[in-house]
Amino acid sequence: MTEAASYTPPQVWQWDQESGGRFANINRPIAGATHEKDLPVGKHALQLHSLATPNGVKVTVMLEELLELGIAEAEYDAYLVNIGEGDQFGSGFVAINPNSKIPALADHSTSPPTRVFESAAILVYLAEKFGAFLPTEPTARAECFSWLFWQMGSAPYLGGGFGHFYAYAPEKIEYPINRYTMEVKRQLDVLDRHLADSQFLCGDEYTIADMANYGWYGALVLHNIYDAAEFLDVASYTHVTRWAKEIEARPAVERGRRVNRPWGPEETQVRERHGPEDFK
Amino acid sequence: MTEAASYTPPQVWQWDQESGGRFANINRPIAGATHEKDLPVGKHALQLHSLATPNGVKVTVMLEELLELGIAEAEYDAYLVNIGEGDQFGSGFVAINPNSKIPALADHSTSPPTRVFESAAILVYLAEKFGAFLPTEPTARAECFSWLFWQMGSAPYLGGGFGHFYAYAPEKIEYPINRYTMEVKRQLDVLDRHLADSQFLCGDEYTIADMANYGWYGALVLHNIYDAAEFLDVASYTHVTRWAKEIEARPAVERGRRVNRPWGPEETQVRERHGPEDFK
Repeated sequence: MTEAASYTPPQVWQWDQESGGRFANINRPIAGATHEKDLPVGKHALQLHSLATPNGVKVTVMLEELLELGIAEAEYDAYLVNIGEGDQFGSGFVAINPNSKIPALADHSTSPPTRVFESAAILVYLAEKFGAFLPTEPTARAECFSWLFWQMGSAPYLGGGFGHFYAYAPEKIEYPINRYTMEVKRQLDVLDRHLADSQFLCGDEYTIADMANYGWYGALVLHNIYDAAEFLDVASYTHVTRWAKEIEARPAVERGRRVNRPWGPEETQVRERHGPEDFK
Repeated sequence: MTEAASYTPPQVWQWDQESGGRFANINRPIAGATHEKDLPVGKHALQLHSLATPNGVKVTVMLEELLELGIAEAEYDAYLVNIGEGDQFGSGFVAINPNSKIPALADHSTSPPTRVFESAAILVYLAEKFGAFLPTEPTARAECFSWLFWQMGSAPYLGGGFGHFYAYAPEKIEYPINRYTMEVKRQLDVLDRHLADSQFLCGDEYTIADMANYGWYGALVLHNIYDAAEFLDVASYTHVTRWAKEIEARPAVERGRRVNRPWGPEETQVRERHGPEDFK
């Protein structure tokens, strides 16, 4: 066992702006805008401001799925938020998301525009606006919301916990790595047992609960995020893998993954998306 | 600066059942039931299995608020889940919540009963079932869902992050304490700035977003959870404190906080709740 040196917290915590590791420049103990900056506004009612991280992909997948159904009103403009440059602290972005995280949506079909923040809140908003991918029958709806909220309450242990301590923290510390590894493996096992008997998370109907969970757990089992596939033995979660592959084969998912993605092969990047022609 | 000793993770993580600190006995890298045990079933349609932690209180507050409106169908049986004894790993509990966490609800007004897990999913289920505390107008509803999902995605940094490393981990490690303290203070500031201009989280209407956030952030500013009030300087978040006090003054909240609570002054505990007479 490696032991961390003993530490006594102060009476009152003070911000040391030198600490924090990777992403230290964008982690702050205070909220609010750091600079004045209006958001661009495109031609469609739906204005998305995002980045193709797992939380961003959930929403672009949903929008592309709605378009796949032929719902023209789901056309959208997607603008890239460069979180490394602090775009999320601009006054225009903070006005639609006081939490300064991607994704955030403004729906200009209402006056004033309707703001929606938190990826799953955007999924619910779009599902209810367009009547798709969220059951209306109460029992099925309860199952869908259960798995949707499960994802939102669980992924912070995967991204902000495991991913941070395993991949991003300035040094490897055994205790938090063990803590979050155990929890992420438990989460994968929760999904794996459920998907052993169920095509999708809420039965045989593909819903926003699948899109939300695919964003994180699909990336984990299929794309080696945090370079942790072997460490977590993700291949052993065979039902999660089967489910994630089935989702990833959908044309809307292929498109949704590319939107607001400033990395990967250049010809696959769709940094801004304003219409179907942007995928050419 | 205190430095943690250098550590190199193995190629493939293995479960060391000796590690984990407080709660090590209930943290596992696998899901599923550990023993056969049916759940008790009471006289009402709504069967809650819970404990008066912040996640549990959200739901009992909601149920008591519905009863306060005179909705008799919201009567419920609330059974105590002793998480220290591993009740959440019994087969009956796992059947209604495969994630083995409190709270979980079974609604026996449908056949078979409808299961709902994740505290916020239960709030949405009850709000839609009884038509209360969740706006139906799309813009207000989007704001309510945004703050509801914000709570679900944020509190893991407060409870599983800050609370664990500051109060429960077997030793104090500076880096994670700093990381989660910064984030919790940011979260409090997000709420504080918003509540400076708004009576409740979604305007002047009290909703399930308030109940959910009160469960965690109300406890943090009013009840010194984790013995961290001074360390976090919670008194400086004056608008959060004003809002939390206003919610806590509601009779339904006073009752909801007592349900499934096996700690505190004995005469205030309502370990099981089957009717209004249990609060006498």
